[in-house]
Amino acid sequence: MTTERLVVVGGDAAGMSAASQARREKGPEELEIVAFERGHFSSYSACGIPYWVAGDVGARDELIARTPEEHRARDIDLRMRTEVTEIDVPGRRVRSRDLESGAESWTGWDKLVIATGARPVRPPIPGIDAPGVHGVQTLDDGQALLDRLAATEGRRAVVVGAGYIGVEMAEALLRHGYEVTVVNRGEQPMATLDPDMGRLVREAMTGMGITVVTDTAVTAIRTGDDGAVRAVVTDGAEYPADVVVLGIGVEPETALARAAGLPLGEHGGLLTDLAMRVRGHEDIWAGGDCVEVLDLVSGRERHLPLGTHANKHGQIIGANAGGGYGTFPGVVGTAVSKVCDLEIARTGLREKDARAVGLRYVTAVIESTSRAGYFPGAAVMTVKMTAERRTGRLLGVQIVGREGAAKRVDVAAVALTAGMTVERMTALDLGYAPPFSPVWDPVLVAARKASAAVRAAGA
Amino acid sequence: MTTERLVVVGGDAAGMSAASQARREKGPEELEIVAFERGHFSSYSACGIPYWVAGDVGARDELIARTPEEHRARDIDLRMRTEVTEIDVPGRRVRSRDLESGAESWTGWDKLVIATGARPVRPPIPGIDAPGVHGVQTLDDGQALLDRLAATEGRRAVVVGAGYIGVEMAEALLRHGYEVTVVNRGEQPMATLDPDMGRLVREAMTGMGITVVTDTAVTAIRTGDDGAVRAVVTDGAEYPADVVVLGIGVEPETALARAAGLPLGEHGGLLTDLAMRVRGHEDIWAGGDCVEVLDLVSGRERHLPLGTHANKHGQIIGANAGGGYGTFPGVVGTAVSKVCDLEIARTGLREKDARAVGLRYVTAVIESTSRAGYFPGAAVMTVKMTAERRTGRLLGVQIVGREGAAKRVDVAAVALTAGMTVERMTALDLGYAPPFSPVWDPVLVAARKASAAVRAAGA
Repeated sequence: MTTERLVVVGGDAAGMSAASQARREKGPEELEIVAFERGHFSSYSACGIPYWVAGDVGARDELIARTPEEHRARDIDLRMRTEVTEIDVPGRRVRSRDLESGAESWTGWDKLVIATGARPVRPPIPGIDAPGVHGVQTLDDGQALLDRLAATEGRRAVVVGAGYIGVEMAEALLRHGYEVTVVNRGEQPMATLDPDMGRLVREAMTGMGITVVTDTAVTAIRTGDDGAVRAVVTDGAEYPADVVVLGIGVEPETALARAAGLPLGEHGGLLTDLAMRVRGHEDIWAGGDCVEVLDLVSGRERHLPLGTHANKHGQIIGANAGGGYGTFPGVVGTAVSKVCDLEIARTGLREKDARAVGLRYVTAVIESTSRAGYFPGAAVMTVKMTAERRTGRLLGVQIVGREGAAKRVDVAAVALTAGMTVERMTALDLGYAPPFSPVWDPVLVAARKASAAVRAAGA
Repeated sequence: MTTERLVVVGGDAAGMSAASQARREKGPEELEIVAFERGHFSSYSACGIPYWVAGDVGARDELIARTPEEHRARDIDLRMRTEVTEIDVPGRRVRSRDLESGAESWTGWDKLVIATGARPVRPPIPGIDAPGVHGVQTLDDGQALLDRLAATEGRRAVVVGAGYIGVEMAEALLRHGYEVTVVNRGEQPMATLDPDMGRLVREAMTGMGITVVTDTAVTAIRTGDDGAVRAVVTDGAEYPADVVVLGIGVEPETALARAAGLPLGEHGGLLTDLAMRVRGHEDIWAGGDCVEVLDLVSGRERHLPLGTHANKHGQIIGANAGGGYGTFPGVVGTAVSKVCDLEIARTGLREKDARAVGLRYVTAVIESTSRAGYFPGAAVMTVKMTAERRTGRLLGVQIVGREGAAKRVDVAAVALTAGMTVERMTALDLGYAPPFSPVWDPVLVAARKASAAVRAAGA
């Protein structure tokens, strides 16, 4: 029996899920697995960092799903603090550098998995690298921020960006006792929502005592004599800050892939087929935050960095690379988040996404409650539903509410996957009991209104 | 313009939803609406009664969605305490009796809606009508029970039946400080679950201090010298009781329909078409707890008394009777409930349902958590998934867990409606963030295991 070698570039969710699944498919006598990770940690939950900073999660190590030692115990040769610096596709080898010793070497592969993740956007503005300006992408980032919060007598924090990370970090800093200002380029927080739904988030955040500044670009970080951050500067104002957190988003980390001549999409992510194979390359797979994924609703490729997709990708890559079979059909764009007790959820297309791909649509917005109106704890939620004109096909759902709001979006995620019309959704047999839902679930109420809007719009 | 008359028999969810929707479709100059209700209340939430008894809901009137006066203000001639005693189909008229005066009269109709609901099963055993033996189907029942609990110095309660009402009433009585015993015919509580999942409910109830007696039929209610209940007697034992609550289930209330020669199914419910028209009768509709509904998974008719279906039926009947259009395609059998902090959910077929309609299947049972494992409040839940052999089509899901468990069943309800395979479900794009879900939602974990079981079972 010949032993093949599988090389994995990147030791977080996608890469190590792929390695683990490949190992389940084939034992070490058939498949050698070598994984390279340039950081200090493997298989950790980056999505958990805001909750660790907030204090919900007590210790860093709770965010680590599997340590390097655990991977090695499963016959995966995981080389930490070792950065892959070149992918040689025709030569079927990668060059790597040991970041401690600086030593370089080449490793050959029969099969290759690229899981290089994403890198945070850092706008090239003065002061961006000053002490007190923090990203929250890695465990090291989280630790640095926690150290800063412990060491300084800070009072005022500015969060740059009001996407998922931005709003979650606003909560975390609030819970450290900071006065929090969020500065956002867009017209409302949560640009993944339509502005009318983003406005609800803004109102709720303001109600929590967070200052929300919108339509505003940061032009500089002002520092003091000690070099540390003092304020965030915008075109029109200056916001004093003892600590600044960047939550501006991420881009696919595909410099290696680009240099190797592998196919990238318009968002800079690797392009794969349904089996997560890099297009045109039989023995190279890619997954996680470094790839683009097919949006099943719009039919377009998107960059959608999310741990849940990375884990699915890894599992499918590992199955295929290990000789099994699996596909990743695509996403519908589901995401949930929270700021304190405010729950935020979305799936499918925003209005502008629908317009961008040539769809005509109607929208319906309703208010309902998470439980029967008479049941204690019933909380108001707003549901927005978008449906294609004429066909009535569901295009998207957004929900803003309190307890029990966010995960209701899953119903819409499944309906989108199935290509259901909003008319058909009105008859969905969703769970009803007074502690869990009004007799008409909010999603059904929205479907009824959207269905009426489709009829009213006519052909 | 001729004015037609719509007569509605039964003034609760289905009947009054039908009347209200018909009124939205047509004004009083076109459509006269007369509704008969034999009880004291209209449009109330019977599902809320256990929570009112438990103390979650403070006052009876909170359970009333719309009072008779509110209906009358919308030009619906709702006649309370008036019982329809005969439906004359060829003569297009109903006979009614005013329960206060005893006066009888005939009312003609152009269109008729039958929404007579269900009646509780009361086994013909000695003592069943003794003071202290209570049903909980109507608001009057709930008030009588609350009065009893307030008036007596009771310590021990026995609940007969361990279905939805039975387990909810066990919680309610526990919260009144009673020692609660539940006596159940079946092998486990919650016969709407498979026994292996029912066992989890039993263990949890036992952990709450509830005595659960199974495989046991009640043979008599023993009364004292004052005629009031003293104990519940079974074949092998006697359970002392200061109060007894019956939660044995309900049957369609179709005596009138049967006498009128209307078509009934094998469960005793009226049979309708997709527009909720009684089969073979152009101008008669029926909905709510008195009809049978199509189970979309098994292809068979079932009797499934649930407020959420009754409301949908009413809305569709009203649309059609008012000259609009709507259909009720059927159910997949979704139901959610809770006992204290234990959440219970099911949808689709149990194993025995699948066998009964000739389906071969595989099952998968998994344990996961409601939130990321490291997030505070993450609670264990057990998910059981059943899929057809060979095709892998989803057949059913059952969930038993704590906070965040029950409504996850909705994902499966939509997947069942869409006829999805468990393989396809493994790729569902469900909402993920640490406070809301592990990176693999429990439903996805179950789908992966069920999908593997389908493959392992082969053709």
